[in-house]
Amino acid sequence: MEYLQTYRNYWKELSHIENILATLHWDLEVMLPEAGYEERAEQISYLSTLYHKKYISVELDDLMGNLALQLESADLEPQEKFFLKRELEVLSRERNRAKKLPEIWVKEFSKLTNLAHGIWAEAKQKKDFSHFSPTLKKIVAMVQEKAELYGYTTEPYDALLEDYETGTKASDLEKLFVHLKNSLIPFINQFQTFPNPFQKKIAKELQANFCSKLPPMLGLPKNSYRLDVSLHPFSTSLGANDKRITTRYFENEPFSSVFGVLHETGHALYEFGLKDMKGYPSALSVALSYGIHESQSRLWENQVGRSRPFWEYLYPTLLKEFNIYHYDLPFDKLYNYINSVSKSKIRVEADQVTYNLHIILRFEIERDLLSKKITVDELPQIWNENMKKFFDLEIENDAEGVLQDVHWSGGSFGYFPTYTLGNIYAAQLFHTFLDTHQSFWEDVRTRGDFSSLLKWLKKNIFQLGKLYSPKELIKQATGEEPNSNYLIKYLKGKMRELG
Amino acid sequence: MEYLQTYRNYWKELSHIENILATLHWDLEVMLPEAGYEERAEQISYLSTLYHKKYISVELDDLMGNLALQLESADLEPQEKFFLKRELEVLSRERNRAKKLPEIWVKEFSKLTNLAHGIWAEAKQKKDFSHFSPTLKKIVAMVQEKAELYGYTTEPYDALLEDYETGTKASDLEKLFVHLKNSLIPFINQFQTFPNPFQKKIAKELQANFCSKLPPMLGLPKNSYRLDVSLHPFSTSLGANDKRITTRYFENEPFSSVFGVLHETGHALYEFGLKDMKGYPSALSVALSYGIHESQSRLWENQVGRSRPFWEYLYPTLLKEFNIYHYDLPFDKLYNYINSVSKSKIRVEADQVTYNLHIILRFEIERDLLSKKITVDELPQIWNENMKKFFDLEIENDAEGVLQDVHWSGGSFGYFPTYTLGNIYAAQLFHTFLDTHQSFWEDVRTRGDFSSLLKWLKKNIFQLGKLYSPKELIKQATGEEPNSNYLIKYLKGKMRELG
Repeated sequence: MEYLQTYRNYWKELSHIENILATLHWDLEVMLPEAGYEERAEQISYLSTLYHKKYISVELDDLMGNLALQLESADLEPQEKFFLKRELEVLSRERNRAKKLPEIWVKEFSKLTNLAHGIWAEAKQKKDFSHFSPTLKKIVAMVQEKAELYGYTTEPYDALLEDYETGTKASDLEKLFVHLKNSLIPFINQFQTFPNPFQKKIAKELQANFCSKLPPMLGLPKNSYRLDVSLHPFSTSLGANDKRITTRYFENEPFSSVFGVLHETGHALYEFGLKDMKGYPSALSVALSYGIHESQSRLWENQVGRSRPFWEYLYPTLLKEFNIYHYDLPFDKLYNYINSVSKSKIRVEADQVTYNLHIILRFEIERDLLSKKITVDELPQIWNENMKKFFDLEIENDAEGVLQDVHWSGGSFGYFPTYTLGNIYAAQLFHTFLDTHQSFWEDVRTRGDFSSLLKWLKKNIFQLGKLYSPKELIKQATGEEPNSNYLIKYLKGKMRELG
Repeated sequence: MEYLQTYRNYWKELSHIENILATLHWDLEVMLPEAGYEERAEQISYLSTLYHKKYISVELDDLMGNLALQLESADLEPQEKFFLKRELEVLSRERNRAKKLPEIWVKEFSKLTNLAHGIWAEAKQKKDFSHFSPTLKKIVAMVQEKAELYGYTTEPYDALLEDYETGTKASDLEKLFVHLKNSLIPFINQFQTFPNPFQKKIAKELQANFCSKLPPMLGLPKNSYRLDVSLHPFSTSLGANDKRITTRYFENEPFSSVFGVLHETGHALYEFGLKDMKGYPSALSVALSYGIHESQSRLWENQVGRSRPFWEYLYPTLLKEFNIYHYDLPFDKLYNYINSVSKSKIRVEADQVTYNLHIILRFEIERDLLSKKITVDELPQIWNENMKKFFDLEIENDAEGVLQDVHWSGGSFGYFPTYTLGNIYAAQLFHTFLDTHQSFWEDVRTRGDFSSLLKWLKKNIFQLGKLYSPKELIKQATGEEPNSNYLIKYLKGKMRELG
């Protein structure tokens, strides 16, 4: 296999550039002095272009071609051969897609969306969709063009989904989402809202101290991550043993930071687990999809982090670190609050139940826009009608309606559904895990021991990287294809428990 | 000038890579989780190699050649033409030097010095030079080879100096240093030692708060820098408007952090000022030399930062921020302490007077080693004899003697002298500035106003980048070539004032 080492080295260089880019981004979000922003953007653009050139290069074409020729007759272990074959397949498919967008389209789209961001922000401030709609029409037209460039069999939305959730079609989502929607909407008023039980502000330092205990407790090694502060919480990988997560602290709402850390730790654990895949770093030992990534953050945030045993274990530590007496923060009030559900007009303020309805609303609109069943001008009306149907809420103006999210101004269509896909996967995966690990809740409640879950995720998710499609992975791990029943069951269980 | 824009773009790319490397290094020193170290080193190595290839490329050869051909007949302003001509000269000289070291030599040297670091550390712990000497012999041999590869007229040390202080020869240093040495050694016991006047520990947070006021006070814009903590204080540039400085906090010695920040702010002000040079970013708009860089840090640290008016202005703020009553920290005790002189065996513990003698001792040894006048085996004896001659101090073991510094294990020969060159330049520059700015001390004492000094440095140092050699720059700014009299005068002035 004379080409294998050259190919591996080539991939290692690409992986270096990717990690360096992550460092530049992380620093931009967390550290950068304000005046350094413009030049940092240039540095990122320079290095991204370098990456792209190296990624679609003829040199890599040749390397992969030669490798494929040698592969059949090569003296390799069957598993290694299987991995390598699959790696070449996945990489070929992804590179072919990357080559389908002409440079001129990419540049124009980047210019348009950069401009659109400012116009969207103005429109939102003016609460006036008509200020944004001419720009959004251009964006939708270019996204439709993108779908044609990529190509599709059934409908244009499928082409876009492929960027985020390979192998999953709009019709798959429809099946999952319609069931979820129909199962939640009739019960939406039976979920209870509970008040914030904190009677005083919790200083940022106290929150930070408590939060710092969470990632190592869940299984992220102390010497391999940092926890910092940024405007919007995120998680990123700067190297196999260098994961960075961020959160933000509100003194009036101390659990915002706590759940931010649980969520981002979930992402980081997945990224950290990928390095144990055979052949790391390779084109297979990377995160499989946005939906699978989100399933890992949601599983730790919701299934684990909003459970009773989890807080039974952490309650004494929380009281101590936050300097609160137990009679000022009774356990049940805290637990109810953590699982509180309330209808909001705003997606980012939504809870684990209603969040999914916000997503489904967006998915339906995006899909119909792409298929030209609806037009940009109709969006505010459709949005407001659906908010009434889903939540019985009246939208007063576009800022709290169709203009609330930044995503469309950036040209992201097909991304929203991965949030709810993540929730669906998380509930399904966790259900399967619990079925075979009956002592888990007791391990958590008494010792804060999550090791059996982490081990199961490593085996069934982390170490498989991009070996299978998301659909296949879920089927292998749980015995069936993605199914929203488990999420519905989980949420209705909470409803009954707290109702 | 069809090649000018292409050339400028090429340089901009090099400058991006350089700044990205600085980001990776800064993050490594200040942020990196421990387990990420190895991969970060690989990322840095990958990007450094990319930089080097681009820097010595045939493409750049051709660009520069074509540019030089067009230059004579080009329709450019005389100043622009002068700058561009000079830029091509400087860049050609530096690139030719870079090409003189064969790749195999560079690799071997890197391997040897990586290994040497550990052996030196062991030897220092064992207090046994003989454990390090076989390795040091190999390093010296390779450094001698390096001098031959670079080439020189008079002596090998000149070839090494060129890396750090272009155009300055060992004989120049000898003249400056012999005079300085002869003027300081007879008076060394007349400089007074004053005790630490702080009667209690100062919490790190209080120190950090006070320190954060210093860089903007001296003139570094708040939106263009960060101040963080690292094991060894340093300053680095991540972009035109993104300077990073670090310090460290000792609760028993709160002025260690304060002077660290003053020193590193001096470096950062220089780097920040370079961007106002015509044609930035270019091969000329970069720091001129190690000595000039050090002159900027020393000037703010010593000439300004150890002055009476500076502390008369800051004293009330210091008392308030450190939460100290004036009768617990009388002004004179503080001022004396800041200018205390005491003979130490250890360079890094030395004050502004004796530091120079530590440097001169090392310069003499390095020069004689390179010229083979002395051998590695003789080093401990020569070291100890000179410590006796210079300071009348008895060295008890190699750890507090010849093994104290890390530099030689890294192959750095020719670097030490730039510390004292910086002190000489700083005193000379500041003398000239004061001559024409009589109200400066009053501006500082009453308002903390340093703007006239910053303006003078911008005009005479910052905006000239690499346009002239260090020697020429000092002559243009002060009217005479580098002269150690001004440093001697400054130090003896302090001696008399406090004596």
